[in-house]
Amino acid sequence: MGYADLLRETTEKNKSIVCMGADPVLDKIPLKGGPEEQISSFYEQILEAASSENTLPGAIKPNIAFYAQYGFEGLRALKKVIAKAKEVGLPVILDAKRGDIGKTSAAYAEEVFGFWGADCVTLAPYMGQDSVGPFIKWCEEKGKGAYILNRTSNEGAKELQNLEIEGRKLYEIVAEKIVEWGSNAEGNVGAVVGATSPAEMEELCKFFVEKKAKMPLLIPGVGAQGGSAEEVTSILKKTGMDIAIQRINSSSGINFAYEKEGTTDFAGAAVKAIKELNKEIDF
Amino acid sequence: MGYADLLRETTEKNKSIVCMGADPVLDKIPLKGGPEEQISSFYEQILEAASSENTLPGAIKPNIAFYAQYGFEGLRALKKVIAKAKEVGLPVILDAKRGDIGKTSAAYAEEVFGFWGADCVTLAPYMGQDSVGPFIKWCEEKGKGAYILNRTSNEGAKELQNLEIEGRKLYEIVAEKIVEWGSNAEGNVGAVVGATSPAEMEELCKFFVEKKAKMPLLIPGVGAQGGSAEEVTSILKKTGMDIAIQRINSSSGINFAYEKEGTTDFAGAAVKAIKELNKEIDF
Repeated sequence: MGYADLLRETTEKNKSIVCMGADPVLDKIPLKGGPEEQISSFYEQILEAASSENTLPGAIKPNIAFYAQYGFEGLRALKKVIAKAKEVGLPVILDAKRGDIGKTSAAYAEEVFGFWGADCVTLAPYMGQDSVGPFIKWCEEKGKGAYILNRTSNEGAKELQNLEIEGRKLYEIVAEKIVEWGSNAEGNVGAVVGATSPAEMEELCKFFVEKKAKMPLLIPGVGAQGGSAEEVTSILKKTGMDIAIQRINSSSGINFAYEKEGTTDFAGAAVKAIKELNKEIDF
Repeated sequence: MGYADLLRETTEKNKSIVCMGADPVLDKIPLKGGPEEQISSFYEQILEAASSENTLPGAIKPNIAFYAQYGFEGLRALKKVIAKAKEVGLPVILDAKRGDIGKTSAAYAEEVFGFWGADCVTLAPYMGQDSVGPFIKWCEEKGKGAYILNRTSNEGAKELQNLEIEGRKLYEIVAEKIVEWGSNAEGNVGAVVGATSPAEMEELCKFFVEKKAKMPLLIPGVGAQGGSAEEVTSILKKTGMDIAIQRINSSSGINFAYEKEGTTDFAGAAVKAIKELNKEIDF
């Protein structure tokens, strides 16, 4: 079973295409203990609450930076968060934005899929095919998944990504490369396309559908970053993207929903936020 | 004292602009014990031999992928390798090719400079200024260093980096961005420019000199990857680059020199390889 199948199966089971970012910030975690215990317990409680209320999201995406900033304690917490996510049956996307020369990427792929046991990873495209190749080999041979940065959700994204090359934007060329690079692992190799630039997203969706590429998108940027989930769904539907393998990400909007709610029940607030995002998406 | 000063001082002290990559591959380390002990002891012995023979390089560059592939044991070894490198007075470049949205990059910067205690890091440019900004803040305020991928040494580099945008290559535009992004941390923010494309390297050096940018380059690709150290020095001199803050990297050519030498004295062979590379560079 490949990553695309895992996505599809989870969408059906959990009735959700929400990807829950899991990006710990100690100052916002209302639990005592050291970083390892605080972080792992925080996400364990959220996932247990979501599971018991039948509101598990469609995937979980820990960004490794937020764990690594707390050193070994943070990294040990990441191990536990991944284990808990697998226990409740969630696809695990390790957000790591890796990319290096071939043999180094091979070592990173071993880290991500071997050591961490992730189902999927995020990659940076600047170094070209041989830098993403070792990851894509795992997608081809072992059904792992990879999302390559295409049109990102941050303000500075356009600085390079929107440069014009003979009438086309750099992100359009990268989209073409993603289709090409992933052609032997169709459905397992996808693109990161931010919700903050709906016009660009629509263009890219049209392109992928035209190319008949079974393309899973990882869509960050809704909520705190300003993108609209309704608009994303409408674009995905309008352009004919295969909805069941898409994922719309929200991190702090779910993780720290309790702050806005003015409650100490962070797990309950997170579950409520997942429910609300499911409703907004309404695929 | 900023990163540029650290480079300059080390060049003077060690009479070397060699950067020694420290990229462990267990199969090639002729020592017993678990990964943590094998890796840390391997590099400790090399650095001790280099120190006692007054042949320390101008910097050390562990690529975190090679440690992370061995999980926590590998990462604990990285801690020890960095500690040893600091003990013998080497600038530590953590090769991590990081880059994410602002708050995530801030967490990565905390990992790299705070937790690992590196002096410098490598970064990917695709996500734009706000993705490198949190690292550059450390360069501006705390004298840390950062090299941004510009024209990399791998075969696939040209796929995106050599795309033409209104008569200029993407890597030329990235070079301009690096100068702009690093303008408040001059000398601490540099570029990764591979030795495998000497024509591109010469062009970039000319550009940096024209811009009067005090630009430290990290130059991979000599040795195993096919670039020539003599040619690099000749380009650096000809274009008027400030040699003392440049670094030419060799990883496996130094690390596993013992294999070619047909000896078990890996530390002695590594020291000999550093000496030879110093001679080839002859700045």
